[in-house]
Amino acid sequence: MYKLIKKQGNAKRGEYRTPHGTIQTPVFMNVGTAAAIKGAVSSMDLKEIGCQVELSNTYHLHVRPGDEIIYQLGGLHRFMNWDRPILTDSGGFQVFSLTSLRGKIREEGVTFSSHIDGRKIFMGPEESMRIQSHLASTIAMAFDECPPSKADRRYIEDSVSRTARWLVRCKEEMDRLNRLEETLNPNQRLFGINQGGVLEDVRIEHAKRIAELDLDGYAIGGLAVGETHAEMYHILEETVPHLPVDKPTYLMGVGTPANILEAVDRGVDFFDCVLPARNGRHGHVYTRRGKINLWNAQYQLDTQPIEEGCRCPACRAYSRAYIRHLLKAKEMLGMRLCVLHNLYFYNTMMQEIRDALDEDRYPAYKRQALAGFEELGL
Amino acid sequence: MYKLIKKQGNAKRGEYRTPHGTIQTPVFMNVGTAAAIKGAVSSMDLKEIGCQVELSNTYHLHVRPGDEIIYQLGGLHRFMNWDRPILTDSGGFQVFSLTSLRGKIREEGVTFSSHIDGRKIFMGPEESMRIQSHLASTIAMAFDECPPSKADRRYIEDSVSRTARWLVRCKEEMDRLNRLEETLNPNQRLFGINQGGVLEDVRIEHAKRIAELDLDGYAIGGLAVGETHAEMYHILEETVPHLPVDKPTYLMGVGTPANILEAVDRGVDFFDCVLPARNGRHGHVYTRRGKINLWNAQYQLDTQPIEEGCRCPACRAYSRAYIRHLLKAKEMLGMRLCVLHNLYFYNTMMQEIRDALDEDRYPAYKRQALAGFEELGL
Ligand SMILES: [Zn+2]
Ligand SMILES: [Zn+2]
Repeated sequence: MYKLIKKQGNAKRGEYRTPHGTIQTPVFMNVGTAAAIKGAVSSMDLKEIGCQVELSNTYHLHVRPGDEIIYQLGGLHRFMNWDRPILTDSGGFQVFSLTSLRGKIREEGVTFSSHIDGRKIFMGPEESMRIQSHLASTIAMAFDECPPSKADRRYIEDSVSRTARWLVRCKEEMDRLNRLEETLNPNQRLFGINQGGVLEDVRIEHAKRIAELDLDGYAIGGLAVGETHAEMYHILEETVPHLPVDKPTYLMGVGTPANILEAVDRGVDFFDCVLPARNGRHGHVYTRRGKINLWNAQYQLDTQPIEEGCRCPACRAYSRAYIRHLLKAKEMLGMRLCVLHNLYFYNTMMQEIRDALDEDRYPAYKRQALAGFEELGL
Repeated sequence: MYKLIKKQGNAKRGEYRTPHGTIQTPVFMNVGTAAAIKGAVSSMDLKEIGCQVELSNTYHLHVRPGDEIIYQLGGLHRFMNWDRPILTDSGGFQVFSLTSLRGKIREEGVTFSSHIDGRKIFMGPEESMRIQSHLASTIAMAFDECPPSKADRRYIEDSVSRTARWLVRCKEEMDRLNRLEETLNPNQRLFGINQGGVLEDVRIEHAKRIAELDLDGYAIGGLAVGETHAEMYHILEETVPHLPVDKPTYLMGVGTPANILEAVDRGVDFFDCVLPARNGRHGHVYTRRGKINLWNAQYQLDTQPIEEGCRCPACRAYSRAYIRHLLKAKEMLGMRLCVLHNLYFYNTMMQEIRDALDEDRYPAYKRQALAGFEELGL
């Protein structure tokens, strides 16, 4: 399963073996919400841009096309023609943020209305596990609540306790599902999620509690939801040491290249974020000198690629001037090229991070990369 | 230049040599209005789906990004990174259909308002040639008026006379531009355009008149604008024999696979049409049995590719069920895959037409192809 190859400081260089192939960590998972990367990027494209793990959203796939449909079609891997690892989130984050909740959160779970057709849906730990089992992802995430960032201590403590109880139920249900004959992926892995807002003591206590369950991996959720970067790094410093070092450590929904470099240094080795794809769709593209906005007039006659030397499908063939024109002309190709570049940029940075760790020079790599980004800002 | 390799009946199998490579005809040109195929399809993709000639729109590129910009960037080939032939239309069709005309059509040309920013623009034969010279396409089209389909005989006769006079001016201006030192493509070709609505005598007289100019190729414009298929085929039968057989014969903006099969039989060997890309963006995809609508519920669990045996990037990797899901989830990837399939379908049909002509079996090929389409309809 997970092999900790080496550490430099707290930074982990690992290898996670799965039935869908081995993941080299630190890794950035590329987000394909509804079983496709927004920006007309396909699973074939993901291979070309160095993606190791695709991440899909349980909530979105449950409401459309429906996890039953995907199950009947042989699971998510066959559905989207991707044979490498897939991680599915639990649906919790979308349920608590996208939908209009009907009634309050109860011990069993929550009832909410689909954002597509308003249909009432109930979801709790067991439902989330069943949906993810239908999807047959490589890694399922536990069903949790991410408490509102403004919540008070009392609310957070209650929420975190419930999330801990839900996790036990998730584990039991996943074990049961993995033993069923009709289960598509009987080796589905389960990662637990640490919560607690920016309250160190709650985070630490919860981390210790879930660590005892001997899950396949552990995530830190509920960060990058409004707190400062300093607060986020502090929480990582306090919490990560209480999660098993010999398991994957996943920081959910984070973040900028600088965030990733800092979190790696604090022991995180799985990441995902919608930022590079979303920025790409807006024509904001990453370079080693920082982020540039291709809408700016200064690129109108710029025959350079987004970044000189980049081997992505956009930079190998097209100029900033051309991509800028595509964006202005509302040609979808403009978005596609920017998304391809940005994901390639992230995936390549992760490769460089792994190389630096392999060669015991991560601190120097990080320093240099951060200094580079500062010129234009991230 | 153009070599008529052989004829079967009136069907022409030709070869058109250009500084950007040799075009095998009959050929379908893939429409990239604003220097990109709508549906996130790039010039790299065009190579993969067997496109020989890309077609861009002079009007669109004149208003955005501006032909001066493209000229400064080294022309359209460099701008969009496409080294094979490019045909640009004259802008006339868009000027007369997309814009709000200010004042009437005069001998010099027309004044109209940009559909982007309302800016007043004047365009006549010389302006169209200068813009196309800036774009540096392989083949430029003459500036013409496509008379409204409801126009009376008097209007059409006057319009066609003016278009004939404009053609002389186009030729003179193109000759002048091709001799200038700063011209990017000094070998730019010029095709004239036959007009005349559905009036055979006007069409024939105009065809004879423009044939005398010894242009690089001849197009038939102003068809597929509301007349019946029978009327269109009749006009082709009457008109094409009066255009030089030893020059490219281009039917502008046509059409369905059946239209193309019929027009080839009447001596046409260049085609373009927005239909396959537009249909693709709507989830309507071509098969040898006719067109299918991937939105239909019957494809929800359909694990087949759009068409069994198709070697396009969509069919090699994805099922109807997956593409249907993408369309419903408004994922751009759905449109992209359908457009790739449809253009591949058209380009492949043209290859089959050429093969059939090479082997003297075009009538049988055409009969069989038409019979196949009839099952589901086009
Ligand atoms: Zn790039
Ligand atoms: Zn296909």
